[in-house]
Amino acid sequence: VNTPKSYKESFLVFIHNLQDLLCNELEEIDGAVRFREDLWQREGGGGGKTRIIENGAVIEKGGINTSAVHGKLSEPIQKYLQTESEDFFACGISLVIHPLNPKAPTAHANFRYFELYNTQGEIENLWFGGGMDMTPYYLYEEDAQHFHKTIKTVCDKSEKGIYEQYKKRCDEYFHNSHRGEARGIGGIFFDRLNDILSHDNDFWYQFTTQVGSQFEETYYPILRKRKSEAYTEDQKIWQEIRRGRYVEFNLLHDKGTLFGLKTNGRIESIFMSLPPTVRWNYDVQVTDSSEEAKLLQVLKNPKDWV
Amino acid sequence: VNTPKSYKESFLVFIHNLQDLLCNELEEIDGAVRFREDLWQREGGGGGKTRIIENGAVIEKGGINTSAVHGKLSEPIQKYLQTESEDFFACGISLVIHPLNPKAPTAHANFRYFELYNTQGEIENLWFGGGMDMTPYYLYEEDAQHFHKTIKTVCDKSEKGIYEQYKKRCDEYFHNSHRGEARGIGGIFFDRLNDILSHDNDFWYQFTTQVGSQFEETYYPILRKRKSEAYTEDQKIWQEIRRGRYVEFNLLHDKGTLFGLKTNGRIESIFMSLPPTVRWNYDVQVTDSSEEAKLLQVLKNPKDWV
Repeated sequence: VNTPKSYKESFLVFIHNLQDLLCNELEEIDGAVRFREDLWQREGGGGGKTRIIENGAVIEKGGINTSAVHGKLSEPIQKYLQTESEDFFACGISLVIHPLNPKAPTAHANFRYFELYNTQGEIENLWFGGGMDMTPYYLYEEDAQHFHKTIKTVCDKSEKGIYEQYKKRCDEYFHNSHRGEARGIGGIFFDRLNDILSHDNDFWYQFTTQVGSQFEETYYPILRKRKSEAYTEDQKIWQEIRRGRYVEFNLLHDKGTLFGLKTNGRIESIFMSLPPTVRWNYDVQVTDSSEEAKLLQVLKNPKDWV
Repeated sequence: VNTPKSYKESFLVFIHNLQDLLCNELEEIDGAVRFREDLWQREGGGGGKTRIIENGAVIEKGGINTSAVHGKLSEPIQKYLQTESEDFFACGISLVIHPLNPKAPTAHANFRYFELYNTQGEIENLWFGGGMDMTPYYLYEEDAQHFHKTIKTVCDKSEKGIYEQYKKRCDEYFHNSHRGEARGIGGIFFDRLNDILSHDNDFWYQFTTQVGSQFEETYYPILRKRKSEAYTEDQKIWQEIRRGRYVEFNLLHDKGTLFGLKTNGRIESIFMSLPPTVRWNYDVQVTDSSEEAKLLQVLKNPKDWV
């Protein structure tokens, strides 16, 4: 096991390498457009590297962003994090990919590392967090199975049972309670990994970076497979209606988005997660046993996909 | 002055008459489609009359809804209303109109009446609330002036100074703090009108119903004037981008929307306020001294329009 001396340095290398790798491959999948990069600085300390791809042949809108910020914790954020520490460091990679084709699912992933310091500037607490999940507009069971199986395989390398635990957390977290339905077909979600399950920090560092490195294998094969499927105008409209639910989740429930807004994060980097074109029609109904109804069925009753 | 014996009965008549009047005139303005009506019941008591118009020649999506609900206040709602009363009655009319043409502004209005009861079932507290505001995508100063002047005229009938006070409240309320800009060019906004400004309930009943009856004169002439303006595809896209800000306000900041969701209101009636087609493009920039820049200028620095 490669035990890093400094998680901070190692994790920074990890997120930037992953960002390059995932951007390169996505450009290759799209074939028509490339990422634009915006470097930004945070007033309180640190900054980020926002990379956005828009109006592609395959990707309607996508962002693969990294950031590394540090500084003082405001009082509401101390409360939110349940800490009395005043100084923090946080870095992570965050990505959302909205394909043009309604047969291709949206994907989201995030991998992050957090340090809190005491008044002597020593690390008082640290943890890893992250996850990945998928939001299809039309359900291909084989895609959902591939996504979950690939995640389970990498989780099992760390320890059996981890996948099951964090798959459940994911279903609980990405839930539009006001609609009584899941945002998508889930994946895994984990936060504040440190001394839980009797594992040390090295274990969770390995776990988080291994899961992150696996994103490529979980989502990109599905995107390649579905990017050229035929679809109708009505199916595109259905995708835009369902994207409305994505917006509802992110603005009403997502802690990451609300945390970003509360800490005066860079708006355009936070809102890269919002879909490009969206619809809210009144009281949309689906036909019994249609493809649309099949999707809703699974969103109302999360399944075991493995 | 016509002093009603029961505000509840009189206000119910007022909102239902206003609903009929505003729906009829809007159908006449549109010319192509008509409202559909959905009656709904609330589990805890009461219900509503939701009226939706969609995909018209003039109106892309609009809702003119009434509701009258009663029952027990949950603890979080007691806290929110700062009351220990357990029983309530509330009724109101709420409307949002999203025209197809980007040169025509979106309008929102709401007029409501609230009663809280003591354990003997007697009215412990009552108040009126409401307001109306306009969200243009292209700024016609004459339209903004007409909107505000018409509101000021009806407010002045009740008392000089009221317009100025509640115009300011409106600018403060309909503010997208995370963007540092107003949702639109404002109007008036007032809440919990009862014994403030040394006026009695009869005064505020008259005020609220007179302002409500004036909506027709404030907004519909603007809609008639702009509904057939020529526009380009880029201007439609700009409208959809700005509609994104409307969604952001309603889901992140609007107390009415969040109150509705917290009290398990009817989702489809609450979300009738969300625009039909919406866009989130990354980091949209406008050209100096363009029509788009002119609008943003006014949203960043609310103006006196009278």
